[in-house]
Amino acid sequence: MAAPERISGVLSPVVTPFKDDLSPDPHRLVQHCRWLLSQNIGLAPFGTTSEGNSLSVEEKMSLLDRLIDAGIDTARLMPGTGHCALADTVKLTTYAVKLGCAGTLMLPPFYYKDVSDDALYASFAEVIERVGSNDLRIYLYHIPPIAHVGISPQLVERLVKQYPDTVVGTKDSSGDWDNTYALLQLGLDDFRVFAGSENFLLRNIRGGGAGCISATANINPAAIHQLYADWQSNAADDMQQSLDDIRNIVQKYPMIPALKAIIADFRSDPQWATVRPPLLSLGSNQKTKLLAELHEIDFQIPDLIN
Amino acid sequence: MAAPERISGVLSPVVTPFKDDLSPDPHRLVQHCRWLLSQNIGLAPFGTTSEGNSLSVEEKMSLLDRLIDAGIDTARLMPGTGHCALADTVKLTTYAVKLGCAGTLMLPPFYYKDVSDDALYASFAEVIERVGSNDLRIYLYHIPPIAHVGISPQLVERLVKQYPDTVVGTKDSSGDWDNTYALLQLGLDDFRVFAGSENFLLRNIRGGGAGCISATANINPAAIHQLYADWQSNAADDMQQSLDDIRNIVQKYPMIPALKAIIADFRSDPQWATVRPPLLSLGSNQKTKLLAELHEIDFQIPDLIN
Repeated sequence: MAAPERISGVLSPVVTPFKDDLSPDPHRLVQHCRWLLSQNIGLAPFGTTSEGNSLSVEEKMSLLDRLIDAGIDTARLMPGTGHCALADTVKLTTYAVKLGCAGTLMLPPFYYKDVSDDALYASFAEVIERVGSNDLRIYLYHIPPIAHVGISPQLVERLVKQYPDTVVGTKDSSGDWDNTYALLQLGLDDFRVFAGSENFLLRNIRGGGAGCISATANINPAAIHQLYADWQSNAADDMQQSLDDIRNIVQKYPMIPALKAIIADFRSDPQWATVRPPLLSLGSNQKTKLLAELHEIDFQIPDLIN
Repeated sequence: MAAPERISGVLSPVVTPFKDDLSPDPHRLVQHCRWLLSQNIGLAPFGTTSEGNSLSVEEKMSLLDRLIDAGIDTARLMPGTGHCALADTVKLTTYAVKLGCAGTLMLPPFYYKDVSDDALYASFAEVIERVGSNDLRIYLYHIPPIAHVGISPQLVERLVKQYPDTVVGTKDSSGDWDNTYALLQLGLDDFRVFAGSENFLLRNIRGGGAGCISATANINPAAIHQLYADWQSNAADDMQQSLDDIRNIVQKYPMIPALKAIIADFRSDPQWATVRPPLLSLGSNQKTKLLAELHEIDFQIPDLIN
């Protein structure tokens, strides 16, 4: 296998379909991943939007197997592999590397709070040393609104300086443009900064960023990719506004159940609406209201494939 | 096996010793557990203080095996079994029940934030139904300062009413006496309310509570148990003050590394000071200062056994 290329573009933290018994549904997952790839969207399974933290290491390994078996291109795969426990992160990351995944999106250990940069540095360093592979490519996952343990730009810089061929990018889901800007200003060589939402896509690309990894890419992939491809066009600001309009509707609702309700509706496949505890599916009033709002702006999901 | 008795008294969230390679050290763990039992302290391994969330399910299962093999009394065992992922919580809880543990201390799934009581109810209910054992005894673990996902008294009440023989107690580590008081006031039949620290031990027992599960029971077990046993004596308030004096020193430092530094010192066994990332051991200045402060009040750890 050739060494993995660094990733850029638009990726989707792929929503995880569940069966009635709440076990993951590999068939629907493969179907959704194939469709996302057909829309030029890379795959970040087991992210926050994927309910990745509601899945065990074994469940994720099994789903990765199914994706690879189905012929999903490993060059487009950046699975989430960061757990609270060192042993779990090492196990899943090692497995993803062995399967040839081009990158892994890595949360810091997120149970213990108020830990120092030194401690988080030690955590990531321990994972890197234990995985011990030249093919490991880590994208650091900064999402303080949910993890409550963040990865500061100073820590990013320190890790990249120590492991320049391994720590190759980051996803900034802080929702704070100043933080993304600080990451871009670090001036790290070929370091890939992804915005955590398409709201910041244009600003991020204009600042030298690599793209975005966004929940709503699960339902609006083509338009988000189009802005990525055409960011230098005169229409770019209008395209950004149009993406924002859709996102602003969806994010009025609990994001993950809302995305699944939309997919279930457009696919006429109610099974897609299932979420795992501690999430709950949208209530029927919420669902009706969300779909009506999307209908009102003539939102479409094109080219769904089965 | 007889049905497990409900637990009361003082328990220690047992600190987990690590070897140089950061793997758990079953030998030192058994030694520490035997000593705690000799001091009349029950065992809550894999709690927050145990770095339980830095251990994988497999590591915890293996340590439980070693405790049982060493003859540790299952009637005194309340391991932490709550993980983010439903499958993990079910697996570890089922294992603990199978081994005969008298209870399990259960965190809510703690990655996704701002989840509703309905969602947490669904999470716990799903675990209970899947474990599906008459021998399951759950103590709900409320620790909002760290988990950032709490268990409200209303949720406690709802779970107890639905599962009166399974949801039998709670540990309140909110640090908020009003919350503990609200739990006591629920008036649930034989429901065991543990304070999350000995700071609240006397108030909790006077209010009808069951005892405490406290980090500092790892180093000050005899005195804490004595207050539990003699709470009706005239000296009780003085005993409480004396416990507080010690706790107040220790909690000026990062709690888990501080406890391990104290044990390492009193046992003349530096290996005990090892913590897993994302925690860091105390720096040598901090350690010297902590031990000097304890020395100043003539703090002792009696009757250490090997």
